[in-house]
Amino acid sequence: MVVQLLVNLTFAAMSLLVIGSVAFDAIETPFGKTDKIIGGAATYITLSSSYFADEVNLVAVVGGDFPKNDIALLEEHGINTEGLQIKEDEKSFFWSGKYHNDMNSRDTLITELNVLETFDPIIPESYQGSEYVMLGNLAPDVQRKVIERMKVKPKLIALDTMNFWMDIAREELDKTIAMVDVLIINDEEARQLSGEYALVTAAKKIMAMGPKFLIIKKGEHGALLFHKDLVYFCPALPLESVFDPTGAGDTFAGGFIGYLASTDNVSFDNMKRAVIYGSAMASFCVEKFGTERLIRLDNNTIQNRVQAFIDLSQVELSLAK
Amino acid sequence: MVVQLLVNLTFAAMSLLVIGSVAFDAIETPFGKTDKIIGGAATYITLSSSYFADEVNLVAVVGGDFPKNDIALLEEHGINTEGLQIKEDEKSFFWSGKYHNDMNSRDTLITELNVLETFDPIIPESYQGSEYVMLGNLAPDVQRKVIERMKVKPKLIALDTMNFWMDIAREELDKTIAMVDVLIINDEEARQLSGEYALVTAAKKIMAMGPKFLIIKKGEHGALLFHKDLVYFCPALPLESVFDPTGAGDTFAGGFIGYLASTDNVSFDNMKRAVIYGSAMASFCVEKFGTERLIRLDNNTIQNRVQAFIDLSQVELSLAK
Repeated sequence: MVVQLLVNLTFAAMSLLVIGSVAFDAIETPFGKTDKIIGGAATYITLSSSYFADEVNLVAVVGGDFPKNDIALLEEHGINTEGLQIKEDEKSFFWSGKYHNDMNSRDTLITELNVLETFDPIIPESYQGSEYVMLGNLAPDVQRKVIERMKVKPKLIALDTMNFWMDIAREELDKTIAMVDVLIINDEEARQLSGEYALVTAAKKIMAMGPKFLIIKKGEHGALLFHKDLVYFCPALPLESVFDPTGAGDTFAGGFIGYLASTDNVSFDNMKRAVIYGSAMASFCVEKFGTERLIRLDNNTIQNRVQAFIDLSQVELSLAK
Repeated sequence: MVVQLLVNLTFAAMSLLVIGSVAFDAIETPFGKTDKIIGGAATYITLSSSYFADEVNLVAVVGGDFPKNDIALLEEHGINTEGLQIKEDEKSFFWSGKYHNDMNSRDTLITELNVLETFDPIIPESYQGSEYVMLGNLAPDVQRKVIERMKVKPKLIALDTMNFWMDIAREELDKTIAMVDVLIINDEEARQLSGEYALVTAAKKIMAMGPKFLIIKKGEHGALLFHKDLVYFCPALPLESVFDPTGAGDTFAGGFIGYLASTDNVSFDNMKRAVIYGSAMASFCVEKFGTERLIRLDNNTIQNRVQAFIDLSQVELSLAK
């Protein structure tokens, strides 16, 4: 039996609103280092989701130092930048990090918040009515403002966050988490958020905080999707080499929510497929520095990678002999 | 689509030869500690495989201190103990270990080789012709003697080993590895054996050493099966609690080889199923101290657990909408 995931990437016309940082990154890995390159959660999320969703509406802020070319690049991918505020006299958010040899851990060298310090997420009128919302990693009160400013309740709101906010803004974070449908975090964050080591127990506690769906990313060990008593495990493709993990989590989120918006189906079964699409997109992201690989994909390449993920964990279901 | 793995556990009559330690363990975990209890690689392997293979032939050695009750327990599980040498005036192998809080690492507190120091693996005439052979973790030259003493070449030989032998007996180990069909090791061992960090690259190097099939166990992160350019990933069931990981790897090996012997099919597709059965058996093992859970299973319970593993990574293959 040849297993195939039959998908028509253009059969729905749901719009997706994405908020998060659009920024500069400087990255050092065992394979090399970059100057300031385009990065930020919303950059990866929108680029990744642009391969699926028809309408991707970006809400973010950059400084006057942000290259117009890079904004044009987002627009070339069909990303609506009306909600991208440009503060001409200020500087863009800048993050610099260095990965350790195992590529599983990194040190943050520089974090300059700049324009993010006073970011007020203004939602353009044309974005109102977006059915799907992806809240990329940002201060939880800023993420919550987006939810509060949506005039029509979206079909699905997904949230990404990180341990930093659990440390310094737990109360704000809990309030925001209570308002979303899907929470996307990694295993260490799930343990910190729940105070539980076993991920199944952690998942139950976290879903009791509000989200009906929980995705726990385990990096090179795959991702778990939880919903009520259901669990789905999506493996990570064993890769020969991981070049630069920056943005992999955001790219996952973008592929996940983009696929959901494109199919307009929020059942658990479709979420499983969305997790595979997210994982496939993330597997591209790590192959080159920054967004380099992500900006040069096509549907055929994506479908082949998705098929590789499916083949990886598929068993033939016939009689064993 | 409801996915089902159709299996008849009794449709083949292949015999399985198992060698390894039969020993005493004293275990300490965050959940409690045991006195000396029955343990050892071959104990777990034979108990686990006894649920599948019709004929399980044990080759091992114990001292006069080993309880006759525990030998009887193995026999009650249909395990042939003719090849279990009893050295009345010596003591059984004894291992004592303490697990850390995360249950992923442990310290060895005591290792007393005792009878294992001079173990000569004698194969009873009645064991000759065993089609499947599982070489549990032991000195690689002892493992190799078993292969050399088989008068008829088995259909499949699988080998388990550990980093200890890579450190002190690498040459012997390489010679033994070159003679087997399936190597079963964990991720750290695969990295040490190959000198490669990326598991895909490690797998290629290791298969070039001889084994046509390689299983890399990743503990709570599942297991990978490699063959030529094929890869299969079997997830681990996310468990609420892991009580005692002792013997989980051997139990995996026993379920794996037992399933292969029972189905008498060494295709890649059947190996995938065998990896699921091995994983399912290992998931039982960790639920209680030592062999406690393993000795009280039945086919129905095993099949339900196997189904849970399949459900965990199964995606519906219909049109997404």
